[in-house]
Amino acid sequence: MEELVGLREGSSGKPVTLQELWGPCPRIRRGIRAVTPVSCPGGLEWLKERLFRAREDWYFLVALGVLMALISYAMNFAIGRVVRAHKWLYREVGDGHLLRYLSWTVYPVALLSFSSGFSQSITPFSGGSGLPELKTMLSGVVLENYLDIKNFGAKVVGLSCTLATGSTIFLGKVGPFVHLSVMISAYLGRVRAKAVGDTESKAKEVEMLSAAAAVGVATVFAAPFSGVLFSIEVMSSHFSVWNYWRGFFAATCGAFMFRLLAVFNSEQETITSIYKTRFRVDVPFDLPEIFFFVALGFICGILSCVYLFCQRNFLRFIKTNRYTSKLLATSKPSYAALVALVLASVTYPPGVGRFMASRLSMAEHLHSLFDNNSWALMTRNASPPWPAEPDPQNLWFEWYHPQFTIFGTLAFFLIMKFWMLILATTIPMPAGYFMPIFIIGAAIGRLLGEALSVAFPEGIVAGGEVYPIMPGGYALAGAAAFSGAVTHTISTALLAFELTGQIVHALPVLMAVLAANVISQNLQPSFYDGTIMAKKLPYLPWIRGRQIGSYPVTVEHFMNSNLTTLAKDMPLEEVVKVVTSTDVSQYPLVETRESQTLVGIVERTHLVQALQTQPASWAPGQERFLQDILAGGCPTQPVTLQLSPETSLYQAHRLFELLTLQALFVTSRGRAVGSVSWVELKKAISTLINPPAPK
Amino acid sequence: MEELVGLREGSSGKPVTLQELWGPCPRIRRGIRAVTPVSCPGGLEWLKERLFRAREDWYFLVALGVLMALISYAMNFAIGRVVRAHKWLYREVGDGHLLRYLSWTVYPVALLSFSSGFSQSITPFSGGSGLPELKTMLSGVVLENYLDIKNFGAKVVGLSCTLATGSTIFLGKVGPFVHLSVMISAYLGRVRAKAVGDTESKAKEVEMLSAAAAVGVATVFAAPFSGVLFSIEVMSSHFSVWNYWRGFFAATCGAFMFRLLAVFNSEQETITSIYKTRFRVDVPFDLPEIFFFVALGFICGILSCVYLFCQRNFLRFIKTNRYTSKLLATSKPSYAALVALVLASVTYPPGVGRFMASRLSMAEHLHSLFDNNSWALMTRNASPPWPAEPDPQNLWFEWYHPQFTIFGTLAFFLIMKFWMLILATTIPMPAGYFMPIFIIGAAIGRLLGEALSVAFPEGIVAGGEVYPIMPGGYALAGAAAFSGAVTHTISTALLAFELTGQIVHALPVLMAVLAANVISQNLQPSFYDGTIMAKKLPYLPWIRGRQIGSYPVTVEHFMNSNLTTLAKDMPLEEVVKVVTSTDVSQYPLVETRESQTLVGIVERTHLVQALQTQPASWAPGQERFLQDILAGGCPTQPVTLQLSPETSLYQAHRLFELLTLQALFVTSRGRAVGSVSWVELKKAISTLINPPAPK
Repeated sequence: MEELVGLREGSSGKPVTLQELWGPCPRIRRGIRAVTPVSCPGGLEWLKERLFRAREDWYFLVALGVLMALISYAMNFAIGRVVRAHKWLYREVGDGHLLRYLSWTVYPVALLSFSSGFSQSITPFSGGSGLPELKTMLSGVVLENYLDIKNFGAKVVGLSCTLATGSTIFLGKVGPFVHLSVMISAYLGRVRAKAVGDTESKAKEVEMLSAAAAVGVATVFAAPFSGVLFSIEVMSSHFSVWNYWRGFFAATCGAFMFRLLAVFNSEQETITSIYKTRFRVDVPFDLPEIFFFVALGFICGILSCVYLFCQRNFLRFIKTNRYTSKLLATSKPSYAALVALVLASVTYPPGVGRFMASRLSMAEHLHSLFDNNSWALMTRNASPPWPAEPDPQNLWFEWYHPQFTIFGTLAFFLIMKFWMLILATTIPMPAGYFMPIFIIGAAIGRLLGEALSVAFPEGIVAGGEVYPIMPGGYALAGAAAFSGAVTHTISTALLAFELTGQIVHALPVLMAVLAANVISQNLQPSFYDGTIMAKKLPYLPWIRGRQIGSYPVTVEHFMNSNLTTLAKDMPLEEVVKVVTSTDVSQYPLVETRESQTLVGIVERTHLVQALQTQPASWAPGQERFLQDILAGGCPTQPVTLQLSPETSLYQAHRLFELLTLQALFVTSRGRAVGSVSWVELKKAISTLINPPAPK
Repeated sequence: MEELVGLREGSSGKPVTLQELWGPCPRIRRGIRAVTPVSCPGGLEWLKERLFRAREDWYFLVALGVLMALISYAMNFAIGRVVRAHKWLYREVGDGHLLRYLSWTVYPVALLSFSSGFSQSITPFSGGSGLPELKTMLSGVVLENYLDIKNFGAKVVGLSCTLATGSTIFLGKVGPFVHLSVMISAYLGRVRAKAVGDTESKAKEVEMLSAAAAVGVATVFAAPFSGVLFSIEVMSSHFSVWNYWRGFFAATCGAFMFRLLAVFNSEQETITSIYKTRFRVDVPFDLPEIFFFVALGFICGILSCVYLFCQRNFLRFIKTNRYTSKLLATSKPSYAALVALVLASVTYPPGVGRFMASRLSMAEHLHSLFDNNSWALMTRNASPPWPAEPDPQNLWFEWYHPQFTIFGTLAFFLIMKFWMLILATTIPMPAGYFMPIFIIGAAIGRLLGEALSVAFPEGIVAGGEVYPIMPGGYALAGAAAFSGAVTHTISTALLAFELTGQIVHALPVLMAVLAANVISQNLQPSFYDGTIMAKKLPYLPWIRGRQIGSYPVTVEHFMNSNLTTLAKDMPLEEVVKVVTSTDVSQYPLVETRESQTLVGIVERTHLVQALQTQPASWAPGQERFLQDILAGGCPTQPVTLQLSPETSLYQAHRLFELLTLQALFVTSRGRAVGSVSWVELKKAISTLINPPAPK
């Protein structure tokens, strides 16, 4: 093992300690070490060495968490001010309907057109949630400039404007925030790499990406557990426990900082959950109710499929329709303004908005839907008033209408928000789609819960006491199940508990989420996968379960055997011909044209460069070969991993998925015989899943 | 892609549909299909096809969950009866100290010696928790007979006896239960494989193993979330989201069934958490308390290191000491009886047990420690009585002693249980070590919480109201942090919430667990890793973080280049010589002795068989070669994956870890040049982590 030790010497020949090589700010640290008295190096150094043995970048994760929490909180703060100004304007503008209508609609129209125009003018990457693109990146694809820090400003400003429109436009924060977090992490990584001279490896990038995604979710909801799990479920198909711990650490820092700021700003007495509930602990639900919870899960699953189907097709319609596509191509702000006008008009409180609680913000929607009293029972004998302003103590008054009753408003809310959300998702601007889905799910659950509380007014009899049915529990299960079904995740159940601070409904909510996922995962691609397909981003289809592992399909059957190799004994003219006639990024380098023994990989760019720097004047008689160029300094890469023709499809798929590979060469007895990339894998898998119709 | 379609034909040449091939009970199903009326095949079949598209074994997971829940509940029920009988005996035996002492001690002594003797006589595998062995199996090692169903009875009976000793011996259920669950799953898998003719693939086994582990934890604690996460953290270093979903599904079924049985048996009004708490929701803790929570985490981390260190060394001492090792080798039951006598004598309630709440069961310990009132404040002015029987409404009276006070008993409990637990873990019998760790952690937290409530009697002032400090919250954090530190997991935090049904302490508990893990992960191997090392089970060291990825160490530097290859043109005598002189399980097969081109792998057993069946009478002049044997029917395997000498250590490690490999051959330009197995990887990693001292 002498070689291993020898390798640790710096390139200058002088032995360098690892600490010096890999720690940040080596000069300052060396200075500090020089100042440290000689007497106490033992104990402290030992402890430091043990604690930071892995020399991991914990400080980096802390910085990321704290930074994102600050940004999240600052954004919320600014948005809160804008919303308050809007409310003030709407209140002070008087009783004239025209003025009130204008004051209600002008705000969102202006904000949305600005959001869309501003963000799109800076970068087209800032639109949408960003999660689909991140998912693609985590599987190993490089999307150029997608994590560029210049997108950051566009996304922050655009997202703030979008969120400032409140429940009128009804969009969320999670997706773009995850994107922001990943951007910051990539930026910090680059800064550090420059300072330390550390070159970022690919594995490192992926690690950072996954930790940053967890931070993104955690700093929005102050929910570290579900932040980590949700980001894992949405983004990856495999993950390491090590990354999961890093994610927890960063997410906890972020969530703590986020809630700490709320306490410092006197919004909260202490650190608590965002949407605290007060469900009964003793008998939160009766055993037969489990049946309704599971039924709610199935309902949510079916509705999620309807939603995903409509959403995808409406998006396609907007893109292909003559008028809308033209409008979107020429003037995105006008399209945004138009949509905002429609949405704001519908939610105008003295108008249709009266029937869909449109005076409540999105947070108030959730707060009220998770209420543990049954509104239907409370309004049977007494009609609550419709106050001039939403009453913070009795937010649910907004959901009541004397003629419509609770059921009417909830159903109307669902129907309207359903198409309004689909319409809102077509606007090209930074916006998240998780929160609206979560609220719609809560409304579905609430509707069922209220119906049950009316159907069984006698409630639950247990231990001699009578407890009424709590529709809030159904709202919780509905929110988790619907959002879980749309995103194909289970951790939304955990999110529901972390948001509310209670976990008394653990089993029913989890069962509802599982039921919803059974339906939606089998019938529709998830919201993010659907977007990946719609945006034509590269992706590797998932082999569900393992039945494909049972097929005797091997690499031989589907590899691209039409391989262009470069042999070392190839004359330069031929090399030039090959390079100009093909368009791949790297070529397999073989020993001789005859043997075809794979010895390395040549990057196309390097080769072109080397060819261009060749002296133009070589004697025509003196033929030159590729190996001369290689000897002249054109770098080649070693082949670190190679497939055999006998490798099975299942193995190859696992390999690509686990190691986030893009392409591999296939060798048989050392000869390069083919290559496998995502394209071939995809084709092979789709042929297995949907075999061509037999004739 | 014509080949792919062609491959789907059965070996008989007749095309077989996939449904027929891979569904269970093909004959019955074909019968049913024949009966189905022709009119309605469309819709239903389509739905079935969509829902069961992956043809996954959901029914298998349901069966596993339900079965394990039944076993878990039945076990609890039986144990409950035995414990009640013991209590009755102890109560009815009168006031004579000798009789009382005998009735207190005879029970555990008899139970433990039976448990140890019975289980060890059937199989030596039934001892301990079983988690370390399962961890090894999940990483790809095959432990013969470890999952044999004949171990099942030994483990169930032994574990029941161990648990029936209650808090006297102070051992838990989780580890062995996970082992039981995995055994059942392996058995069900074999039964199914026999019924269907499906051959179990390795990937399938690993999938089942991880789902079963989750079920094991979930059916003990009725906690599906933490069941899945805990089993993942303890068992694997990588996992797929697909397995995680399957785990959730099975764990939910198990947990639901487990709680359902409790409701049916009228133990519970409805499905709720096992150790319900009633913490304040509004102001559960004040912001500055976060500091104490983190400090508690560090304390738990340090104590966990002390515990792990003592435990490992005491185990070694017991094994090497002349007297104990002799006793353990000759008569395990006597050793168990001896230890049980010591432990039972110490906990005798009228004796020393009075100062350590020994009349409470383990569940009652937890219930009382999570109490949200401050005992120290409540006993300042009034002394609670010491009732003849523990009062179910005021379990905490047991923790109070007029002279010792609360602090004395808690500290005494900790000190005594610390060495008692270490002593109990040396008994060779089925027992879990998680629950005692969890309770000790809760006591540590409670001690700090009580101290704080005395130190700050004015409590928390918020919104004009005064709230006292809740020591129960510290107990929760302590339990999660200490158990997390000992097992190197974070999901114990989630377990604490699922057990109590409240998640108001989310951030402080998580921070305590993280702090504890920072200490323990850096200073000591986890309880399970330590056992793996002590039992000398094979394991692959974990590359912590990624700094090793930065070293330019490649396979070339550490591979075993002393490779024995078999060439096709080798004379048989030489082959025999090679086979008799080496002892590896498989040989690389190369084309010719000169070229050394790797073409396949020959299993040693196959080769030996083929050599033995060779006709003895060959003419001496007519030399025979290996290729003749191969042509004669000795099977060879294709090489599906091969390393290059240029593959980095980091890549090779990832590959081994992700694909659960045991060994790979290294080829350079097609030539077999070496092999890499766990042994080489382990050596290379340990050289990097602890470089040899420079001279």
